[in-house]
Amino acid sequence: MSKLTDLPKRILIGRALRSDRLGETLLPKRIALPVFASDPLSSVAYAPGEVLLVLSIAGVSAYQYSPWIAAAVVVLMFTVVASYRQNVHAYPSGGGDYEVANTNLGPRAGLTVASALLVDYVLTVAVSISSGVENLGSAVHFVIEHKVLSAVAIILLLTLMNLRGVRESGKLFAIPTYIFVFGVFTMIAWGAFKGLVLDETMRAPTAEFDIEPEQQGLAGLAMVFLLLRAFSSGCAALTGVEAISNGVPAFRKPKSRNAATTLLLMGLLAVTMFCGIIGLAMASNVRMAENPAHDLILDGRPVGPDYVQDPVISQVAAAVFGEQTFFFVLLAAATALVLFLAANTAYNGFPLLGSILAQDRYLPRQLHTRGDRLAFSNGIVLLAGAAMLLVWVYDADSTKLIQLYIVGVFVSFTLSQTGMVRHWNRHLKTERDRAARRRMIRSRAINAFGAFFTGLVLVVVLVTKFTHGAWVALLGMVIFYVTMSAIRRHYDRVSEEIAAPDEPSDDSVRPSRVHSIVLVSKVHRPTLRALAYAKLMRSDKLEALSIDVDPVETTALKEEWDRRGINIPLKILHSPYREITRPIVEYVKSLRRESPRDAVSVIIPEYVVGHWWEHVLHNQSALRLKGRLLFTPGVMVTSVPYQLQSSELAKKRAKKRQEWNAPGSVRRGPVNEQAKEPSGRT
Amino acid sequence: MSKLTDLPKRILIGRALRSDRLGETLLPKRIALPVFASDPLSSVAYAPGEVLLVLSIAGVSAYQYSPWIAAAVVVLMFTVVASYRQNVHAYPSGGGDYEVANTNLGPRAGLTVASALLVDYVLTVAVSISSGVENLGSAVHFVIEHKVLSAVAIILLLTLMNLRGVRESGKLFAIPTYIFVFGVFTMIAWGAFKGLVLDETMRAPTAEFDIEPEQQGLAGLAMVFLLLRAFSSGCAALTGVEAISNGVPAFRKPKSRNAATTLLLMGLLAVTMFCGIIGLAMASNVRMAENPAHDLILDGRPVGPDYVQDPVISQVAAAVFGEQTFFFVLLAAATALVLFLAANTAYNGFPLLGSILAQDRYLPRQLHTRGDRLAFSNGIVLLAGAAMLLVWVYDADSTKLIQLYIVGVFVSFTLSQTGMVRHWNRHLKTERDRAARRRMIRSRAINAFGAFFTGLVLVVVLVTKFTHGAWVALLGMVIFYVTMSAIRRHYDRVSEEIAAPDEPSDDSVRPSRVHSIVLVSKVHRPTLRALAYAKLMRSDKLEALSIDVDPVETTALKEEWDRRGINIPLKILHSPYREITRPIVEYVKSLRRESPRDAVSVIIPEYVVGHWWEHVLHNQSALRLKGRLLFTPGVMVTSVPYQLQSSELAKKRAKKRQEWNAPGSVRRGPVNEQAKEPSGRT
Repeated sequence: MSKLTDLPKRILIGRALRSDRLGETLLPKRIALPVFASDPLSSVAYAPGEVLLVLSIAGVSAYQYSPWIAAAVVVLMFTVVASYRQNVHAYPSGGGDYEVANTNLGPRAGLTVASALLVDYVLTVAVSISSGVENLGSAVHFVIEHKVLSAVAIILLLTLMNLRGVRESGKLFAIPTYIFVFGVFTMIAWGAFKGLVLDETMRAPTAEFDIEPEQQGLAGLAMVFLLLRAFSSGCAALTGVEAISNGVPAFRKPKSRNAATTLLLMGLLAVTMFCGIIGLAMASNVRMAENPAHDLILDGRPVGPDYVQDPVISQVAAAVFGEQTFFFVLLAAATALVLFLAANTAYNGFPLLGSILAQDRYLPRQLHTRGDRLAFSNGIVLLAGAAMLLVWVYDADSTKLIQLYIVGVFVSFTLSQTGMVRHWNRHLKTERDRAARRRMIRSRAINAFGAFFTGLVLVVVLVTKFTHGAWVALLGMVIFYVTMSAIRRHYDRVSEEIAAPDEPSDDSVRPSRVHSIVLVSKVHRPTLRALAYAKLMRSDKLEALSIDVDPVETTALKEEWDRRGINIPLKILHSPYREITRPIVEYVKSLRRESPRDAVSVIIPEYVVGHWWEHVLHNQSALRLKGRLLFTPGVMVTSVPYQLQSSELAKKRAKKRQEWNAPGSVRRGPVNEQAKEPSGRT
Repeated sequence: MSKLTDLPKRILIGRALRSDRLGETLLPKRIALPVFASDPLSSVAYAPGEVLLVLSIAGVSAYQYSPWIAAAVVVLMFTVVASYRQNVHAYPSGGGDYEVANTNLGPRAGLTVASALLVDYVLTVAVSISSGVENLGSAVHFVIEHKVLSAVAIILLLTLMNLRGVRESGKLFAIPTYIFVFGVFTMIAWGAFKGLVLDETMRAPTAEFDIEPEQQGLAGLAMVFLLLRAFSSGCAALTGVEAISNGVPAFRKPKSRNAATTLLLMGLLAVTMFCGIIGLAMASNVRMAENPAHDLILDGRPVGPDYVQDPVISQVAAAVFGEQTFFFVLLAAATALVLFLAANTAYNGFPLLGSILAQDRYLPRQLHTRGDRLAFSNGIVLLAGAAMLLVWVYDADSTKLIQLYIVGVFVSFTLSQTGMVRHWNRHLKTERDRAARRRMIRSRAINAFGAFFTGLVLVVVLVTKFTHGAWVALLGMVIFYVTMSAIRRHYDRVSEEIAAPDEPSDDSVRPSRVHSIVLVSKVHRPTLRALAYAKLMRSDKLEALSIDVDPVETTALKEEWDRRGINIPLKILHSPYREITRPIVEYVKSLRRESPRDAVSVIIPEYVVGHWWEHVLHNQSALRLKGRLLFTPGVMVTSVPYQLQSSELAKKRAKKRQEWNAPGSVRRGPVNEQAKEPSGRT
């Protein structure tokens, strides 16, 4: 069946590109930064806006708290960066959150982190694409008018690119990411210059608006709750920080040091951009509301449902550069592009994590080996499908989607950091060198603070966002968790069932002789080849077997057999109902009954064809027969292929498919590199 | 993939019934009649109405021609019956129209007939179901209000029944058919008694209506054309007459005589019912119009689009028995049921013809062998899909569908009868016995007249109906013809490619030795079994091969190998990119390069599992590897299955599936019966 779907798939997805072996190209820091940081850097495109949006519930006056919230996010960011710098040094083999939690806290914690990360990848796609569409929409109005359609189209495009296995290159990530960073910094600098030196007033497009508070006169606990909610939303800026800790093997040497430096650099860039945008937003009087249609007031009237609330970064750009100026459009485009790249990282991370989970038998084994295009493709299609569903359900509204987003991130942060504390505890038990012990104790303190702080944020996120959508993310995690546990249980059960007994003689009755049967329908080249091969195998008994479904054909076969003097006895089984499978299976069973110690070898000549429709026309009975024989104990089934000319086609296709480039290769680094380094795995 | 679709299919279709072998139950005439005649007998439910409908175009006055048209149909019916009685005697092996045309007129004629019959089967379903719904609708109004939906629902029901492989029984056909025949005869007798003896006036529900002629004052050629068109529509009564000639082997002995008698009986019943209904319709002043909304006039005004024109048989029943009386409802129900049975005959005939065509390699070979549920299922789904499409496009309107119907029937009638003339000519060349010659000459005369008359009708049908829809049927025939020719050409090309050379030594280099490779990932029972079997085969060289995708696992494997003292050398291939397929294929190719005269035998341990989802979790790499190895010349691939406990489940399922009962078994008769009889095939 998979053959049947092959053609339309190939038409859509095209031929896989031939990739050069990329194992030798390790990443310098200047390339590693954009490869790993497009996700956290791009989140400054929406995180500041979300903070303002939540604060607006209490009215414009609440905007005064935004610097405090920004400060809290900065502290959190540095805590997380400092924590992960410890991970990177402790696990140079690329121990991501899953491995750290799994190794130090046990399989349940590991699986919880894995579930959280899987949900996160889906949300990374949904949020980044939605936000990208919103940013693009501030420059190109068509996009915002067909928001869901545009988002779905871009997800489809990314999916096709990844299914096709486009060769990843550092440059692909570097150029837009650096343009984006450069653009944001230029904007901040120019804005600061205008505001502080030239003392010009910058006015955002929404500066004239007033905000109708959804909840009047919030105070006390309610206000604290709102501030915490705003902080939770701001934490969206931290998503994707952990990516580098997975990708250490892809760095140039000294790997851990370079990775740690890149991590720090990323943190610095992110917080500067985050704070700069918040600052400019305050200076230019950006007004954002959770429910703009009702809450934004212009000239005493709500702006109504047709109003489109542009992202904060685009409003700030309008205030600094002017609307629809060159820099404005460039920044909008770069922002959208970086957000789409951020979504693409999920396409890389999903199969990468899948591969690790497959090694631990939480997912089908074939995900572990590379080049298994089918398995990767299924993963990518699953990811894209889930993301499209979310985009569709939530109208491609990044604000709504962000409610779901941060739970998973902080589940894995918290468990990973807790795991690191255990890691240091364990090492401290054996370490005697004082300098090393000091370093470890310091690392442990950092990780412990990280675990505490991220754990606190997790609680805050859960409390403030549960009813706003976080429950959906939790539900997704539970589904992943249950499914993966079930797969693991299945593999464990099978592995127990097939475990080799300790004494080699234990395994019931060993076969002593083998009786080979070559299935024959006509005397043609495939049959002759199968007969020749069967003779080579020197089994104890060899016979040819034909099913009589048509007396005329059977007579012709017998005559041909004699005429050619084939020195293998030909047995004819009568089949009054023109069945093929049943008589053969019954004959094989009767052989087994007669001499249970013998094995039966069934040799089937097969045509190898090239087109999918040829499969429909050939080998169907052979396939079904093989399927049935596999259930018969004591039987082995041998296919002797005969390659028809048309099979050349399929051979080439299969080769091409094998040269396909699995997504995530750049960040995964070569396997032998991983193997050479001391591994933190147990 | 087919496994994945298995579950929903099974939920829908349920488990196949266990069928007793039915080969021994041959049909007595009283059962054979309803089995084979439900199609032609049921067509009297719509054919008389179609005649009146066409005549109404020239106004009510044209109804006076209906007895003449009925007479022409009767003559035609007896001609066709007489002709097929010759077929039945000449081809006791069940030579249907396809075989007769193929044998005597060559493959092109045969294929034309086959295409015509295939189109016909689709139309039998569409027309019979639509007409059945109309008849049922005369008693149950809900059905007529949701006509297309009801028709599609009934087609789906029949499809499910046939996919499930319900055991056919003669009784299933006998009871409704006899009730229907009895009901129609009672109606005719009672109507005649009322009209002729009691001299009561019977008034159909439409007797008060007037008809606005669509074409005023038709005369001369135009009138002749209209009459011919009415006659063409009346010919719908002849559809299905040829069914008996396919089914001779299913009759009790003397087969041919019994079949000929049944054929005659069927003809007599059909014409009596046809004429009786036309007569009663005239007596009760039934009024039918092609376009009732505009052309039927009541009190000087058209009846409008809400008017539902009931079938003629139901209007006559209303006139004779009274509307909604017991007999009226009984007859409506029996008519609908017989029409549904008639549709069911297409479900039987389609795969039966497919099986014969497959033997001649016009369709995939697997259709030829029985018990190939998948192949039958595909045929049934194709049939049902095409019929549903027609029902949907033509609003389940039997009048519109009949325009398409009769072309195919008369194509096959004409070619079959022409073929019979050739048949007799050929036999007359060698036959010397005078009595036999006399019989043959008489048969030839009958067949020649039959060919002439049906050919004439074919021309009439084509001329009068081409633009009314016959072109659709012709297009369908062309599509079938082209597809089947292409399949045949493919098989011929392959058969030429694989034809065994005459000198056995011709076939390039014969392999001289065999090098066996057992693929190993871990030491467990499946591996141990594969190794044991591989040893039995005594190949010239035997080694175990493992791919190093994980250094830790590979080391463990080597240790285990040594610990157990397995006396087969273990070769490790390194795979830096964690690929499995490529290193193995390249290794096999390198072996072939080193010694091109050797064959390579790759032995793969395989798990056999029970659930579809287990397939996703296991054997994927083995499957893909097998797929790739089949393209490598000089390789044979052996699966050594290890049956997991869960495989018991799948084994049972496979068994059940095998015991499935192919539709059309009753009418096909047992194979050995066919083989024993002298065959008319060349």
